This record gives sequence, structure tokens and C-alpha cells, in this order.
Amino acid sequence: MKTFGIGLVGCGVVGGGVVRHLQANHDLLTERSGVGMELRVIATLEPKKVPENSGARLTGNWREVVDDPTVDIVVELMGGTTIAREVAEAALRAGKSLVTANKALLAHCGEELFALAEKHHASIYFEASVAGGIPIIKALREGLRANRILSIHGIINGTCNYILSRMADEGSDYAGVLAEAKRLGYAEANEALDVDGIDAAHKAVILASLAYGFWVKMDQLYVEGIRKVSSLDMAFARKLGYTIKLLAHIRPDEHNAVAVRVNPTLVPLSHVLASVSGVYNAVAVEGDVVGRTLFYGRGAGADATASAVLGDISEAAIDRNHGSGFRRLASNTCYSGTVPVQEMMSRFYVRLNVTDRPGVLARVADVFGRHRIGISSVFQPEGHEGESVPLVMLLDDARESDFSSALEEIENLDVVRRPSQVIRVEDFS
Amino acid sequence: MKTFGIGLVGCGVVGGGVVRHLQANHDLLTERSGVGMELRVIATLEPKKVPENSGARLTGNWREVVDDPTVDIVVELMGGTTIAREVAEAALRAGKSLVTANKALLAHCGEELFALAEKHHASIYFEASVAGGIPIIKALREGLRANRILSIHGIINGTCNYILSRMADEGSDYAGVLAEAKRLGYAEANEALDVDGIDAAHKAVILASLAYGFWVKMDQLYVEGIRKVSSLDMAFARKLGYTIKLLAHIRPDEHNAVAVRVNPTLVPLSHVLASVSGVYNAVAVEGDVVGRTLFYGRGAGADATASAVLGDISEAAIDRNHGSGFRRLASNTCYSGTVPVQEMMSRFYVRLNVTDRPGVLARVADVFGRHRIGISSVFQPEGHEGESVPLVMLLDDARESDFSSALEEIENLDVVRRPSQVIRVEDFS
Repeated sequence: MKTFGIGLVGCGVVGGGVVRHLQANHDLLTERSGVGMELRVIATLEPKKVPENSGARLTGNWREVVDDPTVDIVVELMGGTTIAREVAEAALRAGKSLVTANKALLAHCGEELFALAEKHHASIYFEASVAGGIPIIKALREGLRANRILSIHGIINGTCNYILSRMADEGSDYAGVLAEAKRLGYAEANEALDVDGIDAAHKAVILASLAYGFWVKMDQLYVEGIRKVSSLDMAFARKLGYTIKLLAHIRPDEHNAVAVRVNPTLVPLSHVLASVSGVYNAVAVEGDVVGRTLFYGRGAGADATASAVLGDISEAAIDRNHGSGFRRLASNTCYSGTVPVQEMMSRFYVRLNVTDRPGVLARVADVFGRHRIGISSVFQPEGHEGESVPLVMLLDDARESDFSSALEEIENLDVVRRPSQVIRVEDFS
Repeated sequence: MKTFGIGLVGCGVVGGGVVRHLQANHDLLTERSGVGMELRVIATLEPKKVPENSGARLTGNWREVVDDPTVDIVVELMGGTTIAREVAEAALRAGKSLVTANKALLAHCGEELFALAEKHHASIYFEASVAGGIPIIKALREGLRANRILSIHGIINGTCNYILSRMADEGSDYAGVLAEAKRLGYAEANEALDVDGIDAAHKAVILASLAYGFWVKMDQLYVEGIRKVSSLDMAFARKLGYTIKLLAHIRPDEHNAVAVRVNPTLVPLSHVLASVSGVYNAVAVEGDVVGRTLFYGRGAGADATASAVLGDISEAAIDRNHGSGFRRLASNTCYSGTVPVQEMMSRFYVRLNVTDRPGVLARVADVFGRHRIGISSVFQPEGHEGESVPLVMLLDDARESDFSSALEEIENLDVVRRPSQVIRVEDFS
């Protein structure tokens, strides 16, 4: 049996998980793969964090991993887009297989890296970059290969889903839940990448590229995080039959241009995505042949991510053993670019602060009507005449630009007080 | 670009779907696969059912498909285990790739067919054999390769799930819903294969073999269908916080022997499997590294099955193009045989017909106690003294043999009238 050498670059939480589980399940993995895998070098600046008896040589210099002639598969787990990019490029140039969990790297440099991989007939394996242990990359790329993908809706950031689930369950406020999430290790000390939707956007770029065959640029996405979701909105959403999730939406329009956005979203309580709670992730994929599918599991953490990384390592070893070489990222020539943000379509939940006075609803409705935006429901808690009260509305499908013009006009009415709250709605119809 | 020839054996509902979707998505599939695929021959006894413009030559003799030197990939969609087996064996002996949706064939002859495939260095692709369009075979075999599989729980028969969902939603009786399912085409004219659990058992054998690396024999399973599930049980289950699903259970015990069973099961309403309704399938897989995952989608029908068959056809073409040859079914030497039915562990729901008289519960509880079976809850609708009334109990985990002895003793009590109802319970703890 042939044996392939593995080199790790980065050995933090995920790297530690990979080393431990590779030790524990080594025999099983070998039997199932039909090839040998041996961890040979680990580059890390924190050698004390490497699990004992890893069997690997430790170094502080990543070049020693890539340059090691006994290393066939380079596993990049350091994160970031600067040194990680150098590591990835050096590995591919050397014709080595690259395994990475780095969504930021792929979202920003995926196009260049895949071109480089093709040039050097090397392959990139990136199952761990989206939704942790859920084999969604493999499902989209291989299992559903015969399908035109009609839509993808994903809960793909565990931190945001943890925060929003607790807000929904307990009626708690964003700030309190965030603080607790940090204490429990479910949110990073610097939470921005997660709660501002950037991490989910990176993953959405990868999913969109797999489904539609071209690399969507980060600046072509609409991205909105969860900071402004309040317990008030969560309560109103529930009254209307919804909960609020941070959702990635990927969907081609009738001209085969693809709309990609990440935003807090009202999801019907009856939809299975509404019951995905805590740090779990789920990706709903609708294909023209298969119909509706859903993939669910833990989206982050050392263990779930290690499952995907080890799956990829074994895949790389099997490919090298077969000599099957470069796994290209397929292009789909029928899809042509992205839908500009201003032209994206969505339903909207709007919460206005209005003076409680007869005729206010009529004036607001008149503005939406003139912009040809339908109102599907209105909800207004009782107040006292003359006071400022919330006015909650669910709107029909509207173009982003039409909606913004209407909202601006409404916010200029003398009976409306800024700021308004806007959250998009998805009914999966 | 190299092009591979496809030959279909059988062109009924699924075959027709394969032909239509291959026509519709041919360019996309080719771009994504990087190889050409051409449908060249179809063997069928009903040539009028073949979609027009298939481009294929029609024949009434399956040997013409297998023997055609321009056919590289044989797609067996005729079903059954007699001629289908001949087709499969002939294709493999000729070194052709075999794509099949035939769970009965694999459950009964999988071991022999995979040995033959290995001998002739040919591969078998069978994603469509379990859970239709859900790529669960690929997930188990590849994506979760690094995991010891701790358990698999699957809703893998759409007909049964349709019937049980309607019974749960409407309080209807089994017979009425079955009749309507037949009228709507959700159940076959001869429903036995589905409602007696045989179809689910075939699929459970395949899932177990993938997860544990040896072929489980059909007579090593406990298999029970849904005929005896009554609307009364459905109502009692709901009162206790459960619904009833036909579930396949696959799980190794502490000695690495694998228990495989298919039976109607009380599933907690809070578990995601409880909300899988209608003809949808779902498979929950728990791995030691990845944790809990779930895969959901349509489990049957021409379209969903065609998605899997076409995915497999493209996979076969890619493999042939790479020359990567035989895809072996991995063995896992750490798992050793199956758990005998009498030693399988389960919780039980028991509905006894008892005379409504003081002291009855004590006598029943005494028997369970002497067999060391705990009772976790008891539910008894009010009746009139002396009448026969139901006594419903949920029991703790018990060995099958202990439970049957206890039940037999209980049924011999003078206050208990046969028949009793027994349904197994799964709490996913």
C-alpha cells in the first residue's frame, strides 16, 4: 500500500482536532481509503499546543512543510489571506495537493488559486471551508451535478445562529447574548467577522461559485449582519409566524444572473430552517431535477471541521494514488455574472416609529402604493394617541432600489421618526 | 474531450426521467464533468414509453446493451433480482461501469456483485438505491470517511412516510390513507414491499454495509412494517409527545457488532425527523468526529431518482476518463457481525387491553419489574369499571428477549385481553 505524507501549516484549535482524530481513527481511515497517510511535519508558532505523540516533526517555518519532499498533501489551517495565500501558492506550485478550511482565502483569491492549481496540475480540497462537517461542497459539486441549482439558502454561521436562537428562545437582547456567547467560546473576542456577516459572505461566495461556475466577487454581494436585530423584532416576527435567522441567499434570476446576499431574514416557523438552532448549520439546496434537499450538521468547532479536513486529506491521498490529478472547478457557461444589489428582489419586514394618529397608515401605504410595492400584512400594537408607536408591515416582493426610494420618502413624512428597522423576508415559495 | 457511451436497461418511470433530464441538462452536465456522455442504446419491452428524440437505438434484448462495444456505462433500471442480476454480472464481466438504482439487488447480491466488480476492475455506482436524490451514499462513503459511525436513523420509504404523515395530520385510519395513496400513485398496486418494511430493509442493508464495511444479510435484520399502526396509537403517541415514523435504525453495540432494524417508531415531536413529512426522506447520521448530521430530500419518484442516476453516470464517466478504475467498498475490520434480533435493545410503547379494575396496573408493573424492565410513563384514558380499556405504557431500554418474555406473561394475566400493541421508541439520547 502506498503512503502519502501530510504536512500541517497552523495547529490551533482545528489543527489540534485534525491531529487527534487522525491518531484515533487512523486505521479506519486507511482501510476505507485503501492508501496510507502519515502526518510528517507541522509548522506552528505554538508547539506546545500540538497534541502529544503526533509523530510529526515540528517547525516554526511553513516553508519547511511545503519544501519537504516527503510531504505530498499540504493542509493549510492558519487562516487569513496573506501568509495563508503564500502557503497555498507555494504548495500548488510544487504540485502538492492543498487542503484548506480557509473560506476567506477562497472567497478573495479562489479564482487565482484554482487557475494556479490547474497550471500545476494540483488539486485544492476545501470541504471544511463551508458548514464544517456537513459535506455540502461534495454534495453540490458531485452528488447534485446533474441539477441546475434553483436556489441555495444557508444558515452558515454558527455564532450568529447561536445568538439569534437564544434571542428567539429567551426574548433576550443582542448585547447580553453576545457577551454570554463570548464567555462560552461561541463567539470570538473580536466578533465582527461573524456578526457583521463577513464569514457567511465568504462561504456564500464559495457555494455560489460551485453552483454557478464562476467566482463571485465579495463586492458583488449584499451583506448585512445581525447587530441591529432587536428582541422587539424577534417578538413581532413570532407574532407574524416567523423567526429571524442570518441567511445566505443564492439564486439566479430569469436571465441567469446570480443574486448573492447575506442578511438577517424572517423565516417561516413552519420551514425546517426555522428549527435549526444553536451552533448548528444547515444548507437548503433546490435543484431542477432533485427538488428540495437539506443538509444539516455542526458548522464549526475543532471536531466537525476536522471531520471535513480528514475527509479531504483522504480524498487527496486517493486521488494521488489513482493519479487522477487536477480536480477542476467546473464553469457553467450559461450563467452570466451577478445581479447588482439595487436590482435584487426580496420581501421586506419594516418596523416604523410613527405618531399614533388616525391616517398614518394611509399615508405610509400610499407611498408604497405609488412605488408599486404591495403590503401583505400590517401589525400595530395599541398605543395612546399622539405617542410614538411601532408600525410593523410585511411587504410583497420588491426591487431593492424601489424599496429604498419608498422608504426614504416614508421616513421624510412628519408622522414618521427615524430610525426605521428593515429586515428581509424569505417565504421559500 | 473524450465521450463515453451509455446504455439503459429498463425504461419505465425512472428510466424516462433519466432520458428526459439527460437531454435537458446535457450541456451543463458535460461542462461540469469535463467528459462527454452519450446515450446510445435502450433495452425496453415498452418502446412507446421512451421519451422522443432520446437519440438512442432501442432494443428488446438487454444483451444488446451490455454487448454493444460503444457502451461503456450500463445503467440497470429494471428492478428485481433475477434478470437484473444477470445484467449486472454481464456488465461487470465485460469491465463496464454499472449504475443501478436497485436496492433489492444490492441487498441480496451486493457482496457477490462487488467481488465480481473487483475481479474485473469495474465499478458499481448506486447512489439512487437509497433515499433517491439525497446524496447519502456519497456522504457516508466519502464525506464522512474519517468518522466511526455511531448511529444511522433513516426515514427511507416515501410511501410509508406519506401514509403515516397523513394519519398523524388527519387522525385517519391506515386503510383509508393507503387506498388514497394508491389512487394518487404514492403507493404501488401491490403495496407489500413498502408497507411491510422490505424496501426500507433493503436500503438499511446498503447503509449498514457502507458504514460498517461488511454485507449484512437480510435475515439478520429485525423488520416490521406499518400495517398494524392504528389511529389510536397515533393519538396516544401525540399525547406522550411523539409521532410515529417507519424508521431504519443502524447502530453498533459496545462490542462493535451492528444492530440493524426497520420498524414503526415513536419519534419525539421535538426531533427534526418528526417534521419530515409526506414522501420526503431523511437520514440522520451521527459520527464520532462530525457529531450529528442530517440529510433530507425526496426519496423517490422519477425526478429525484434521475438526479442520483445522472450524478452516478457522470461520476462513472469521470472515473473512466481518469482511468481511476475500481471503486472498492471498504471493509472495516473493527466491526464484527450483527447483533441477533433477540439481543437488540430498544424502548417500547405498549398498549394493552385491560379490564378497568383497581390493581391491574400493579400486576402489569410487577411483571415488567421482575424482568427488570423500567416503566417511564403510564397513560390510561378513563373508562367504566369492569370494561375493557387501553393501558398505555412507555418502557425504558430493554432487551428484545426480556421484553417478549414479560409481554407473554402479561398477556396471560386474566385482566389482559389479546392482542396487545407494541411499537418501539427512539429518543436519540
